[in-house]
Amino acid sequence: MSGIITLLTDFGTADYYVSAIKGVILNINPKAILVDISHQVQPQNIAQAAFLLDSTWRYFPQGTIHLVVVDPGVGSQRHAIVLEHQSNFFIAPDNGVLSYVLADEKQPAHYAPSNLPKLRKLGTGFKAISLSNRRFWRPSVSATFHGRDILAPVAAHLSLGVPIEEFGKPVSKLLSFPVPRPHRSQDNLVGHIIHIDSFGNLISDIHSADLPAGDLCIEVSGQHIDGLVQYYAQKDDLVALIGSNDRLEIAQHNGSAAAFTGAGLGDEITVMLRTHV
Amino acid sequence: MSGIITLLTDFGTADYYVSAIKGVILNINPKAILVDISHQVQPQNIAQAAFLLDSTWRYFPQGTIHLVVVDPGVGSQRHAIVLEHQSNFFIAPDNGVLSYVLADEKQPAHYAPSNLPKLRKLGTGFKAISLSNRRFWRPSVSATFHGRDILAPVAAHLSLGVPIEEFGKPVSKLLSFPVPRPHRSQDNLVGHIIHIDSFGNLISDIHSADLPAGDLCIEVSGQHIDGLVQYYAQKDDLVALIGSNDRLEIAQHNGSAAAFTGAGLGDEITVMLRTHV
Amino acid sequence: MSGIITLLTDFGTADYYVSAIKGVILNINPKAILVDISHQVQPQNIAQAAFLLDSTWRYFPQGTIHLVVVDPGVGSQRHAIVLEHQSNFFIAPDNGVLSYVLADEKQPAHYAPSNLPKLRKLGTGFKAISLSNRRFWRPSVSATFHGRDILAPVAAHLSLGVPIEEFGKPVSKLLSFPVPRPHRSQDNLVGHIIHIDSFGNLISDIHSADLPAGDLCIEVSGQHIDGLVQYYAQKDDLVALIGSNDRLEIAQHNGSAAAFTGAGLGDEITVMLRTHV
Repeated sequence: MSGIITLLTDFGTADYYVSAIKGVILNINPKAILVDISHQVQPQNIAQAAFLLDSTWRYFPQGTIHLVVVDPGVGSQRHAIVLEHQSNFFIAPDNGVLSYVLADEKQPAHYAPSNLPKLRKLGTGFKAISLSNRRFWRPSVSATFHGRDILAPVAAHLSLGVPIEEFGKPVSKLLSFPVPRPHRSQDNLVGHIIHIDSFGNLISDIHSADLPAGDLCIEVSGQHIDGLVQYYAQKDDLVALIGSNDRLEIAQHNGSAAAFTGAGLGDEITVMLRTHV
Repeated sequence: MSGIITLLTDFGTADYYVSAIKGVILNINPKAILVDISHQVQPQNIAQAAFLLDSTWRYFPQGTIHLVVVDPGVGSQRHAIVLEHQSNFFIAPDNGVLSYVLADEKQPAHYAPSNLPKLRKLGTGFKAISLSNRRFWRPSVSATFHGRDILAPVAAHLSLGVPIEEFGKPVSKLLSFPVPRPHRSQDNLVGHIIHIDSFGNLISDIHSADLPAGDLCIEVSGQHIDGLVQYYAQKDDLVALIGSNDRLEIAQHNGSAAAFTGAGLGDEITVMLRTHV
Repeated sequence: MSGIITLLTDFGTADYYVSAIKGVILNINPKAILVDISHQVQPQNIAQAAFLLDSTWRYFPQGTIHLVVVDPGVGSQRHAIVLEHQSNFFIAPDNGVLSYVLADEKQPAHYAPSNLPKLRKLGTGFKAISLSNRRFWRPSVSATFHGRDILAPVAAHLSLGVPIEEFGKPVSKLLSFPVPRPHRSQDNLVGHIIHIDSFGNLISDIHSADLPAGDLCIEVSGQHIDGLVQYYAQKDDLVALIGSNDRLEIAQHNGSAAAFTGAGLGDEITVMLRTHV
């Protein structure tokens, strides 16, 4: 264990929820190193949390525990789980928020028409336990804040070296939604905007390896962009480039591509070979 | 001492104020563990800070220092104090921001008509010191930022084990406002909205133990809610439930109860026995 | 080295950028103590970041590393550097964001007409290295996120005691803009609003030592203020006072001076001797 516990929630930073979680963890493991990923996930937006987690967990040392509390179904029959993958640990409700992690080693071939999560069998390299052993919960458990009462104490005990098998029963299937991927349409590659960052950059589900060789033309919200640039400041215009998480991204230097194009989450980004234009 | 110092302020996170406080603390005790509770208290909103502190301090280990800097009277004659209670420490201006902590062991019987803070004698189980010993202040003290120049260095020295008596003179009275509580009106229980969280949940001053036995009906802002649910996702509607800090709370699943009802801070929540409706 | 690394960026706290930087640092130095200064610098606002850094770095222990990632030119030919000053370390793009630090020991005599950064020779007491040694970078470096791929790993290695000379070649000039300062106009002192904090306080480039002796009258946005007060709560009005970083500041008790006066960044603040009014 690295001793690091990251936190990703939709609690915001104005309320006491995040600090209650931190207090519970530090009560059990005063040496835990707490790192905030973000608490500004849109309320109950599981897909956004899943994307943010995917974009950051690989940068942390092995043996890190990632605690994700985006949990609209709290108190219902949904499971809470710990997932082990490549010596990293993910503690979360079983609601699809780990979909990108679960797809880590087998990228789906194309975009699935529905993004509703459904139960899927775990791939090799994954182990999951349902958090059913009350011995590691807080003595009194509320129906509305399992992040504080179940997930946080389990994360703290795990950081102290408790083997994950102790927390409950193994499960072989978890809820996950298909990770968004581009598809081919005639000669074009059609992807989707899956994240808009705070600069207004439009981040897509198209990876650098997806791009065809040749001169490219990109279309988004009726705007045409000729070719890719290497970095934001290269042109004082709407530009397309491969961003820092290896995804095709639309940006505007010293401005917001989102505001300029009016494009939103889920909108299409089309990549054409210039010979076909 | 746990080595943990929590911070609760109205400084926001865009300015340098919070990091100046952290720098001062780490200069004195480089091993201090700093935990943000919130820096988004509304400017100078002492009652909100008092509520947030009440909702989180119990989750931290004994020997934790809670540093509260919501201080509209900074530079005036108001005292700054350290309060000890159950081996926990609270460092704050003496302006009512510790009212819930001071009421910890004797809940007032009913809601007081005025919420202006006044000097009240400390209960048993409390010890308070006025921070008058300049030896623990920064060498130069500004008139506008005692959080950095007095409270932070005192917190750091306390975390290193300096006995609280060293920081100044004992005081037997502190300013506090009456903690909001519901009252009976005819056959009903009338409480108040004391917090609206970032999901738009309306949190009241009615504890689970306050509720009468029987079938309940709740009224808020002209909306009627029949009975309590156990958890948010139980009904796709406006619901009432006992929330994670044991208070009656109004929520809307996948929405904002505040936006839906138009209710605001201080508004009444009425609980009726269904036989009386 | 103090082991402390502070972070000042324009990344916001909703995205994964800040946590990716933290993960990279903790991967190299799991004992690093990470302290956020602010991540809410306005996108690409180098001057604001420079001011915030100036207002906070002195409060941290010697041997602290200040990592600044406000980097509109990322991927272009701009250098990234480490600057040593008084046993403190600043890691940043060479784009003017360290202008106040570089002016630390020789305040310019008056306000410069242009605030465009230009190459200036380092003063004594400063040492700078261009980060050219790829051995301390991440193995694969993106063109859009040097904060994660170059600056963060260099900061982590520096915190472990690697001498700064190892990171690249010495440079004798850095880009900096003239630090804003007031000027005399007839018998008056004319300064500028250089920061508006989250309370709406207007903070100027006029230091207490700049003020003439005698009864003062301050003018901002057509509002006249007679004399200085000592602290915010002293008058229930628009007030002028020397704030916590020794600068003349306009405030409104329990309100926002920015909202009341309509004044904005760069606007003038005029100080007159009352005998001249």
